[in-house]
Amino acid sequence: MERFVQVIPFVTTLWKIIRSECRLENLHVLEPSRRIEAEAGYTELWDENEEALTCAGSAFTRHVIRRNGLFLPSYSNSAELMYVVQGRGLYGVTMPGCPETYQSDESQFRGRQGTSEREGVKRFFGDRHQKVREIREGDIVAQIPGTAFWIHNKGQSDLVLISIIYTSNEQNQLDQNIRKFFLAGNPQEGSQGGRRHRTRGSQQETKYGNVFQGFDDELLQETFEVESDLSRKVKGEDDRRGHIVEVREELHIVHPMIEEGEGWEERERERERERGSSRRRGSSSQRQNGAEETLCTMRLRENIDNPERADYYNPRAGRITTLNSFSLPILSFLQLSAEKGVLYKDAVVAPSYYMNSHALIYVLRGNARVQIAGDNGQSVFDGKLQENQVLVVPQNFVVIKKAGSEGFEWVAFRTSDNAMKNNLAGRLSVIRGLPEDVLVNSYGISRDDARKLKYNREELTVFSPSSRSARGLRRDDAAN
Amino acid sequence: MERFVQVIPFVTTLWKIIRSECRLENLHVLEPSRRIEAEAGYTELWDENEEALTCAGSAFTRHVIRRNGLFLPSYSNSAELMYVVQGRGLYGVTMPGCPETYQSDESQFRGRQGTSEREGVKRFFGDRHQKVREIREGDIVAQIPGTAFWIHNKGQSDLVLISIIYTSNEQNQLDQNIRKFFLAGNPQEGSQGGRRHRTRGSQQETKYGNVFQGFDDELLQETFEVESDLSRKVKGEDDRRGHIVEVREELHIVHPMIEEGEGWEERERERERERGSSRRRGSSSQRQNGAEETLCTMRLRENIDNPERADYYNPRAGRITTLNSFSLPILSFLQLSAEKGVLYKDAVVAPSYYMNSHALIYVLRGNARVQIAGDNGQSVFDGKLQENQVLVVPQNFVVIKKAGSEGFEWVAFRTSDNAMKNNLAGRLSVIRGLPEDVLVNSYGISRDDARKLKYNREELTVFSPSSRSARGLRRDDAAN
Amino acid sequence: MERFVQVIPFVTTLWKIIRSECRLENLHVLEPSRRIEAEAGYTELWDENEEALTCAGSAFTRHVIRRNGLFLPSYSNSAELMYVVQGRGLYGVTMPGCPETYQSDESQFRGRQGTSEREGVKRFFGDRHQKVREIREGDIVAQIPGTAFWIHNKGQSDLVLISIIYTSNEQNQLDQNIRKFFLAGNPQEGSQGGRRHRTRGSQQETKYGNVFQGFDDELLQETFEVESDLSRKVKGEDDRRGHIVEVREELHIVHPMIEEGEGWEERERERERERGSSRRRGSSSQRQNGAEETLCTMRLRENIDNPERADYYNPRAGRITTLNSFSLPILSFLQLSAEKGVLYKDAVVAPSYYMNSHALIYVLRGNARVQIAGDNGQSVFDGKLQENQVLVVPQNFVVIKKAGSEGFEWVAFRTSDNAMKNNLAGRLSVIRGLPEDVLVNSYGISRDDARKLKYNREELTVFSPSSRSARGLRRDDAAN
Repeated sequence: MERFVQVIPFVTTLWKIIRSECRLENLHVLEPSRRIEAEAGYTELWDENEEALTCAGSAFTRHVIRRNGLFLPSYSNSAELMYVVQGRGLYGVTMPGCPETYQSDESQFRGRQGTSEREGVKRFFGDRHQKVREIREGDIVAQIPGTAFWIHNKGQSDLVLISIIYTSNEQNQLDQNIRKFFLAGNPQEGSQGGRRHRTRGSQQETKYGNVFQGFDDELLQETFEVESDLSRKVKGEDDRRGHIVEVREELHIVHPMIEEGEGWEERERERERERGSSRRRGSSSQRQNGAEETLCTMRLRENIDNPERADYYNPRAGRITTLNSFSLPILSFLQLSAEKGVLYKDAVVAPSYYMNSHALIYVLRGNARVQIAGDNGQSVFDGKLQENQVLVVPQNFVVIKKAGSEGFEWVAFRTSDNAMKNNLAGRLSVIRGLPEDVLVNSYGISRDDARKLKYNREELTVFSPSSRSARGLRRDDAAN
Repeated sequence: MERFVQVIPFVTTLWKIIRSECRLENLHVLEPSRRIEAEAGYTELWDENEEALTCAGSAFTRHVIRRNGLFLPSYSNSAELMYVVQGRGLYGVTMPGCPETYQSDESQFRGRQGTSEREGVKRFFGDRHQKVREIREGDIVAQIPGTAFWIHNKGQSDLVLISIIYTSNEQNQLDQNIRKFFLAGNPQEGSQGGRRHRTRGSQQETKYGNVFQGFDDELLQETFEVESDLSRKVKGEDDRRGHIVEVREELHIVHPMIEEGEGWEERERERERERGSSRRRGSSSQRQNGAEETLCTMRLRENIDNPERADYYNPRAGRITTLNSFSLPILSFLQLSAEKGVLYKDAVVAPSYYMNSHALIYVLRGNARVQIAGDNGQSVFDGKLQENQVLVVPQNFVVIKKAGSEGFEWVAFRTSDNAMKNNLAGRLSVIRGLPEDVLVNSYGISRDDARKLKYNREELTVFSPSSRSARGLRRDDAAN
Repeated sequence: MERFVQVIPFVTTLWKIIRSECRLENLHVLEPSRRIEAEAGYTELWDENEEALTCAGSAFTRHVIRRNGLFLPSYSNSAELMYVVQGRGLYGVTMPGCPETYQSDESQFRGRQGTSEREGVKRFFGDRHQKVREIREGDIVAQIPGTAFWIHNKGQSDLVLISIIYTSNEQNQLDQNIRKFFLAGNPQEGSQGGRRHRTRGSQQETKYGNVFQGFDDELLQETFEVESDLSRKVKGEDDRRGHIVEVREELHIVHPMIEEGEGWEERERERERERGSSRRRGSSSQRQNGAEETLCTMRLRENIDNPERADYYNPRAGRITTLNSFSLPILSFLQLSAEKGVLYKDAVVAPSYYMNSHALIYVLRGNARVQIAGDNGQSVFDGKLQENQVLVVPQNFVVIKKAGSEGFEWVAFRTSDNAMKNNLAGRLSVIRGLPEDVLVNSYGISRDDARKLKYNREELTVFSPSSRSARGLRRDDAAN
């Protein structure tokens, strides 16, 4: 009989997973659990088997690309939203069916190597490739599932990116495992330490791999019409550099030089608006352009660091900048959006919940005391959140953030392209929307108290520290 | 070895659930399984672990709010469609970001309590809050997931509401458990008897709870800028009244007084049409209005009781009124729709199935004999359906309803905002659409018989009792 | 302890299914596993428990309807896309709420049997029924979930159809089992051999069945107002003919006679365009038409055999014709699309993957060597694909096809109405879109080699056999 009993807990564990229930009674801060090393950088991965991440249909990762590093071209089954924590670089995406619109003239390259040896095919032009974009600190970068991208660090310091990997994106028709397909190198060989990339279902250990390795040498030779030594290089079986390789000479990539300063993005958006309005003006002109104009020139990047862009701003408390599919249309395809927040010392973000999304908070700088309450009214999180930590706030769960003494800066990814937030205090809050008499009777309080609840906080979302803060909560900061 | 055998049935049960297969070989009528009592009313819940409900991604509930009762403000993760079975009341929703458009002047309230004690902030106005709607018998009320609502019984009799709780709504990104967040009171304490609210996965017992209880007193004080006695009232830990509380004095809530009679809804719709047409006239004027005009003024209620509104009407048999997203646009967001039906004595609803939804039938009055057939041609239900009972008709399953001697009145909730019904007999039926020669050969019958099948029933959906009814089926009624 | 160990593998199997993980490490060609016989034909079914099919949310089937055979009217919970492999026939669909627009005059039928015996109801017209369409070799036919259809072989040879049954279609709200509802006959009795239709969950054996058998004789009599002998015929309990019955006399079905040749489809599309443009011209005229004009006259069929229609054509290699929701709008409802391909001897389809769909390849003629690579870079399939075999290519997995010595002809069903393909070689490929310097550094190759990779293959998707083919791969063909 004891043997039977041994089976029970195992089966009970099974049961929990089967019902795909999210208990979420005890959330905790998440830190990277593995690191994949490569020649010119490394990738840190958060444990995808964490219940909070699984329930949010997401994974979390952080790439550090060192000076002159090149993150090899790859595509994956998941929508990805990246945030550039530090540095600057180049980001290239190859969209299916889009033309090579960036073209250099031959003089940029040495000699005439460009002339093909095949007879009849003479090429005097330089290189041609698809659009390349500059990225820099504060940029949100959208990554479409199934499209290949590469990243190059062209700055002086490390290029650091964090990203949410959203396997629940509706484009993904297979299971919830992250499937990453590299188009070059030999990623699993190059990594040191925990070099295997485990997937959500803890038994299955998928590995990063070069997809060309799945093909016959001869079939590849025929496909590319190249000799066997080159097809072997494509498969990269002897490559030891991992998934981030070092660029030996400076990368010559054609791309428009952008001016420093805040002006360039505005100009880009301006151009986009012009395209949009010219489309509206005459539908006939749209037809002549084909679909290239819309898909192939889609904006994939937007800076959310600029204080000028803040959506909520309180000079005594801080600011919040949001990015959704209204400001970056591709997000409607990814079903993701983002928020950048800065809180000054002791300031508070109003108790609030997202009606239609989860949120993954990543701490950029400083720390905060955070409390989260669930549907039973239970406290599911009450703790300090610090740099490089991730916290998942489940849909409809209420969260309060209070900055520590150095302030608090974060980026939050939300699993909806138009995340809707409901505040429970302050102007435009739910409490404000309720009639006084409903408050009086709901809480069993006086009319005067009801008015205090409704009107004492006149601020919106970002609250300045109150006199109470000085008295009450300073103790907590001291305690932590 | 016997021990091993003991595990098998357990694991087999597991297996069935794992595949999330819906066997549905044996449907039965469903009655409430639990009741949550409160000071001024109670809530009855149907067992969410019932296979038919689980397969329909739905739960079912019935609220009885007594005279002067107030259902406390709450929001949930599920779309809800309510039907007012009896009584009249007020219904308030607070939508995120919508302004407080209902405003009273001070003279309505006693004295000058409204003037805040905080210096510099003088308020001479009365109360301001979001839109409040009157509800009454026959109303369908849409409840958006994640928005808070409250209900007050301002009539003389009990206010009775039934509702489908649709956890499969695409807004819900978490599991299929119902998660209800109260903003006041102490719901779990106030209930007597089965006061716990079990969720779908039978092990997990979620409880109704006040979400503010998950936060620290001091953080709440700071958030609302109130004193500790008031923040404790907000958390309601000493509250013993449950989720429906009694209003001691009459509720003073600003809302337009509506005239009696059928006219008011037409006028409301008229106004909506005007808004719509003015929008169409000039898109520039729309932009000036912002999104408030569309979202914040969205119609959430529609009466489906008025016989004049019937979509199908047969003076000898009865009528059916449907409500879908064409008539109440918010339903497209909930992915739900409704149907109200009245059948006279012995009348029959044609054999029919919903192509794109399940249906949950709730009996308002009378009774009916109902038969349901599944995909193997098996009979999955054959029985009598009575007042306050619920029956789930799965998608594509064919159902016939025949009213008993007192007639039959029901409301059906469908899990699609535009449920499409296919009839198998009568005018506009599938049989009518088939060529005679296909019928002749399919059933191996004469051309004359094929014409009888196609044309004998000229009625549409609601069939009057035939002479056969007198002979054949009266026996059944006697037998039951 | 040994007993405990016995449970483990079982539970492990469970676990795998629970996580609904798709391992797909070892794909193989699929052949029909069962056959359901009937009087005038048979249906072959592929095993729905095959992991590759389950992961693609699909099942696969092949109908052979013999001369004068009639596939009985039925509807199902799944979207279906059929391809007519051989023969010609009639295809009838009855859409809910659509009028009977095909009408014959009485003189077509013998005598005056058409006049009903019921008093007062005289019918001098002939038959009236919904639209009937001709189908023939090379046609793709869309089948909407929940709508009844029938098929009649009016040609001289067998009518052969293959179809993908897509249970993951978003219209289906129940489980992933195929649920087929016949409206006539007694399908399970008529079949010989493996006459039961097993569903995805291997325990549950659903059977084909006549849905009317689930109802009481008397209720059916009342519903149709017919006598008991006719209602028994409708239930077909004594029917022994199965689901495909023989038509004894020629079927008299009103439908426009279509001329031979390629012209008729173009004309039909022309009419559709006219309807569309008249709609655009004035929105007032649209309102007068009601919804019938759009839904009831929706095009459900399109021929993809005509070489003239090829989307990709290479006179030295072959052609590919695609059909998506831009060319056949109903596909957006089914979330399916199709591709017809013809490869000449030794020609190659470029390595490619579908970004947003799976693909089910069915071989019509000839054979091919096929390789598929997965996300680890592993080879998940490397083999020969022959007539009447099915191969599933999972989303994002890369496939190369090389025709054998007799060439290769296939139809592929894709689980997206607008499947997007990414090529990894040739013009417009991902490799072409990458900057030379990225290739140089990714593969560790010279600039000249990078140019070879980008430019040696100037062809698009369909590649002619290269000189390498003669040397390298002929060996394989010999080996097989």
